Amino acid sequence: MSLKEFNDLAELDPAAVESLLKLARRLQDRPEPQALAGKVLALLFLSPSLRTLSSFQAAMLRLGGGSFVISPDMSIHGLETRSGIVMDGAAAEHLREAVPVISSYADALGIRAFANRSSLEDDLSDREYKAMRELVTVPLINMESAIQHPCQSLADWKTMDDLGIPRQGGKFVLSWAWHPRALPLAVPSATLHMAAMRGMDVTVAAPEGFELPEPIMARARAAAEHSGGSVRATNDRAEALEGAQVIYAKEWSSTRHYGDRLADAELREQLQDWCVDDPWFGTTAPDCRLMHCLPVRRGVAVTDRVLDGPRSVVIQEAQNRMWGQMAVLYQMIGPGA
Amino acid sequence: MSLKEFNDLAELDPAAVESLLKLARRLQDRPEPQALAGKVLALLFLSPSLRTLSSFQAAMLRLGGGSFVISPDMSIHGLETRSGIVMDGAAAEHLREAVPVISSYADALGIRAFANRSSLEDDLSDREYKAMRELVTVPLINMESAIQHPCQSLADWKTMDDLGIPRQGGKFVLSWAWHPRALPLAVPSATLHMAAMRGMDVTVAAPEGFELPEPIMARARAAAEHSGGSVRATNDRAEALEGAQVIYAKEWSSTRHYGDRLADAELREQLQDWCVDDPWFGTTAPDCRLMHCLPVRRGVAVTDRVLDGPRSVVIQEAQNRMWGQMAVLYQMIGPGA
Amino acid sequence: MSLKEFNDLAELDPAAVESLLKLARRLQDRPEPQALAGKVLALLFLSPSLRTLSSFQAAMLRLGGGSFVISPDMSIHGLETRSGIVMDGAAAEHLREAVPVISSYADALGIRAFANRSSLEDDLSDREYKAMRELVTVPLINMESAIQHPCQSLADWKTMDDLGIPRQGGKFVLSWAWHPRALPLAVPSATLHMAAMRGMDVTVAAPEGFELPEPIMARARAAAEHSGGSVRATNDRAEALEGAQVIYAKEWSSTRHYGDRLADAELREQLQDWCVDDPWFGTTAPDCRLMHCLPVRRGVAVTDRVLDGPRSVVIQEAQNRMWGQMAVLYQMIGPGA
Repeated sequence: MSLKEFNDLAELDPAAVESLLKLARRLQDRPEPQALAGKVLALLFLSPSLRTLSSFQAAMLRLGGGSFVISPDMSIHGLETRSGIVMDGAAAEHLREAVPVISSYADALGIRAFANRSSLEDDLSDREYKAMRELVTVPLINMESAIQHPCQSLADWKTMDDLGIPRQGGKFVLSWAWHPRALPLAVPSATLHMAAMRGMDVTVAAPEGFELPEPIMARARAAAEHSGGSVRATNDRAEALEGAQVIYAKEWSSTRHYGDRLADAELREQLQDWCVDDPWFGTTAPDCRLMHCLPVRRGVAVTDRVLDGPRSVVIQEAQNRMWGQMAVLYQMIGPGA
Repeated sequence: MSLKEFNDLAELDPAAVESLLKLARRLQDRPEPQALAGKVLALLFLSPSLRTLSSFQAAMLRLGGGSFVISPDMSIHGLETRSGIVMDGAAAEHLREAVPVISSYADALGIRAFANRSSLEDDLSDREYKAMRELVTVPLINMESAIQHPCQSLADWKTMDDLGIPRQGGKFVLSWAWHPRALPLAVPSATLHMAAMRGMDVTVAAPEGFELPEPIMARARAAAEHSGGSVRATNDRAEALEGAQVIYAKEWSSTRHYGDRLADAELREQLQDWCVDDPWFGTTAPDCRLMHCLPVRRGVAVTDRVLDGPRSVVIQEAQNRMWGQMAVLYQMIGPGA
Repeated sequence: MSLKEFNDLAELDPAAVESLLKLARRLQDRPEPQALAGKVLALLFLSPSLRTLSSFQAAMLRLGGGSFVISPDMSIHGLETRSGIVMDGAAAEHLREAVPVISSYADALGIRAFANRSSLEDDLSDREYKAMRELVTVPLINMESAIQHPCQSLADWKTMDDLGIPRQGGKFVLSWAWHPRALPLAVPSATLHMAAMRGMDVTVAAPEGFELPEPIMARARAAAEHSGGSVRATNDRAEALEGAQVIYAKEWSSTRHYGDRLADAELREQLQDWCVDDPWFGTTAPDCRLMHCLPVRRGVAVTDRVLDGPRSVVIQEAQNRMWGQMAVLYQMIGPGA
């Protein structure tokens, strides 16, 4: 099985996802410390990172290869991203050179570039990421773009498998959570699609004005139709949580006021009770889990007692980032790729 | 010999230290570039570093493994360290998640977190480091905490062995040195204990108001009793230096005014003659060495002519950081660990 | 063939350059992922970097070794570079310690330190780099100093070989290009010398006040005499470009007003037409190439249409940095070195 790009879990068919999950488990159980000897992964971070930064470096090392990191906080020359511009300002290097140059040293490239959050249309179409994709000739990994985060989705899928949370018929609630800032739609979009692909019965619970965009919902419904799952949305959190086996908490922007920071702030400031706490689990399945992609603001999106309690599987999710990414890298540039 | 933690040299018995020193010498003489193939060391720096940052990366590479570095100066999400806080400020990630997440990618973890220097009691008890230690499930290495720096101590011990400086009966002077700022007690505490464990006759020379805290002195006296060495303290520098085989210079905070920056500054400003210079060696042993853990401020703590002269062994000490740490890593996660 | 230092391409005889180029091609064609197992390269960046930072890390990884990076933008202790100073300011560490310490962990060391651009004499004599060179005991690589950039020159030489651009009789134009700031002379000096050593007929085209310094020109003329090439300079760009097979564009300081930022700025502000564009190729050889070391300011030094068109070989040059450096590292610290 060879993988050329890993941009969006939805681009893979179920057998391809299954193959990645199986390989991830194999590499977790039986180390292959020579599989990527002499292989190089370039990691370009245009947005901040902790898990992605760490887990990709660790993934390459465990397979006997290595990586290098480039991010604008380093002493590089300043990166210009706008096209057609006369570069007489501060930035001395354009992404049109930086991306091909970095790629030219590597067997595979990972790029992280968060949503600009000014135009919903641009972000939904992943315009910026797709423009960079044009510049790359080696296998490419999406380390979170405006609207995708396939590495997180693969890790979350594996985490639910590890925990024995059912695929068909499993009840998955993706719940909006409070946060002082308007965060991107990448994780909620990717998570919704992942759970739908996995065959689960998915409910998106969000306050009014924070409903996920219709194109995202439609795409997920189509995936659910194929997998035997279901997708629905509601503003009624209490109703959504009944019988849930997973509460996946995530903060995101108002979609009604997308790109309008002030209107978003005004809308969200009354929603501070969307902080996952013990009472949320009153009507869920007894062993309902709390999932979150991290970073999580304690006491804001989720309370300390939930994060520190037995329901939370956030560290397992984070660790599965590494095992999942090792499978992706192995299929991209490993033996037989 | 297997090592689960390396928090404090005092936690090891003399045979365990001997075993590390012997292994360090073996790895220096006979490279083992496959010993840690596929193994990953996570390095978390909450405080600045040059030697530790470089030498741990080099140590892993020489043994065929690798490492990744996380520090707050990177483009990460901002790290909150206070517990029980509502995270609605700038920091988006809490150490309670960051530490377990980073650990989950690694076979071993190193943490550096300097003393806060507000409460002497907190710093002496290594409260912050011990709280992080609770969050870690993989072998842990102290890369300098509020009150410990075992990697430096192991390197310094090896350096004295390399140079033939006697253990039993060797005369070791730990001298306070001038510096414009109030630095932590970690290196002086760890150094005092190391020299006492090594069986040396140790004198701590410091100006009034800068005496090392009694719990540190008492612990060192107990170690000396066990090793056949001795420990004493004096404010009389001239007397302390007579017959010294090693002057170990180190800058540290006023203990009389601990946490009181202004009172400390007032006290230290008259002490600029505590800059190690040629005359300090007038009554020492003829081949007396100058040791310092670095970084050293030239012309402030030690003069150029001493640092550039034949007495200085500061570069050897720094290099021994690598060999010592290779031994620690090998015992922690190497073959047979 | 063993290499102890790589400071300046001019220090190598033609057979040594040939040997490096041949080895670079071999390593490009036949990977040797174990050649540098357990070997460590230290990379000290006192100036910004993208290609050098990436390509050296990738080079070590492809040969089975590894590297670590130190730069002042990291959370290190602040680096003092002036000698004889009393260090009671912000910097806590002196290069006189930092360089030997970093070297002590490594099998080879790379240093980047751009020109200070205050004294032409200091920069031409590479005073700062040579001072650091005194502190290093392991093999040393110049990653761009005040006046040298041998890694770039080796890559550029290989790029022309790869493209079949003739050595003897090849027409090479090194052209000044516009830039808002006064950049160093390292790349133009190194490039001129490289093309002369390669046996090409070299023309330096620059506006009045930007002529390359006579010592640089004289040294290149001597190299050309030896190789059968030629070197000349002109202010007449149109005449220079006739029949060119390569236009190598590079931005550099006014040499008439070296170190005088205001006078330089005044002189250069009328020279914005020195931006390489399609009309420049009107009288060149039909397949004339555009070379540039990068980073390049689009619309300032070179237009978008030239950079995005078929004449541009800037990405190939950048990639050849890696292959060339692999050859240098292999000869320095590889099998048989």
